[in-house]
Amino acid sequence: MYRVEVVEAIEGRASIRTFKPDSVGDEIVEEAIRLANLAPSAGNLQARDFVVVRSQSTKKALADAALGQDFVRSAPVVVVCCANLERIKHYGERGRTLYCLQDVAASIENMMLYIHSKGLGSVWVGAFDEERASIALNLPNHARPVAIIAIGHPAEKGTRTRRLPQGQIEHREKW
Amino acid sequence: MYRVEVVEAIEGRASIRTFKPDSVGDEIVEEAIRLANLAPSAGNLQARDFVVVRSQSTKKALADAALGQDFVRSAPVVVVCCANLERIKHYGERGRTLYCLQDVAASIENMMLYIHSKGLGSVWVGAFDEERASIALNLPNHARPVAIIAIGHPAEKGTRTRRLPQGQIEHREKW
Repeated sequence: MYRVEVVEAIEGRASIRTFKPDSVGDEIVEEAIRLANLAPSAGNLQARDFVVVRSQSTKKALADAALGQDFVRSAPVVVVCCANLERIKHYGERGRTLYCLQDVAASIENMMLYIHSKGLGSVWVGAFDEERASIALNLPNHARPVAIIAIGHPAEKGTRTRRLPQGQIEHREKW
Repeated sequence: MYRVEVVEAIEGRASIRTFKPDSVGDEIVEEAIRLANLAPSAGNLQARDFVVVRSQSTKKALADAALGQDFVRSAPVVVVCCANLERIKHYGERGRTLYCLQDVAASIENMMLYIHSKGLGSVWVGAFDEERASIALNLPNHARPVAIIAIGHPAEKGTRTRRLPQGQIEHREKW
């Protein structure tokens, strides 16, 4: 079993878009979602849902919704992460347009760090047609799909992308 | 030096709202922001900025913007996390209303995991008046403050909040 330190996990993760055909066990996906939901959320409302997709036909429909990004179809498992507009409704407009999006995104980071720590790889897909994805998954109106995470055994090393110099993103006291 | 495994960090983190007066070194804050920015981002545009606040007067202004949530004032250091609407503009409306919010949120999760792994504590504050915070920090129009993270040495244990049964947030193949 891998034991990966948190800084190493953060530093080591890279987007993986090419996967071996090997399957990914249910227990890993379950644990990834459990850990995802341990991220904080507004009012602890956990306004996020996860749809685990393994069937070829649904992955194909999601890849089509994602403008043909083929790694969505070729990954052994795909998790569609949704904001739950019903669960966040207590917070009104700010809840629907900010909090639940943040709550999903923070949870995805946990998921990706865990996946990486198990020697697997993943990629976050944000560019897709939400309506087509909703139809493919039979989502209710209150579930908004906001990210598709493709998961599998890496068939590439993954490129750690460059970052801006820290002085460009960090400010002291005022902007 | 602490070495905390990634799953332990995810499981161990809890919101901390009461802080000891002890200061938090610059090197920790620098590293937290470096690791934050290693989270993935749309097109690797890193449409996120971090304003590190230590002055009493600015923390007071932020606490006021946050409807008086006093731990914003009492934390030794506060990091205001902003979506950068200029850096994300390539993606149009979806970039401004979704991607950059996700990019900031994913980065905050890294930050909080790291802070926890160093034996420190933090809390994510989402409820605040963005305009008042922008004025306090002299933010340009293209920087939207979307989260205030209060950081310090925990003066409380923190309560691990309960989670929904996993069956309520996880779905198989379809909703």
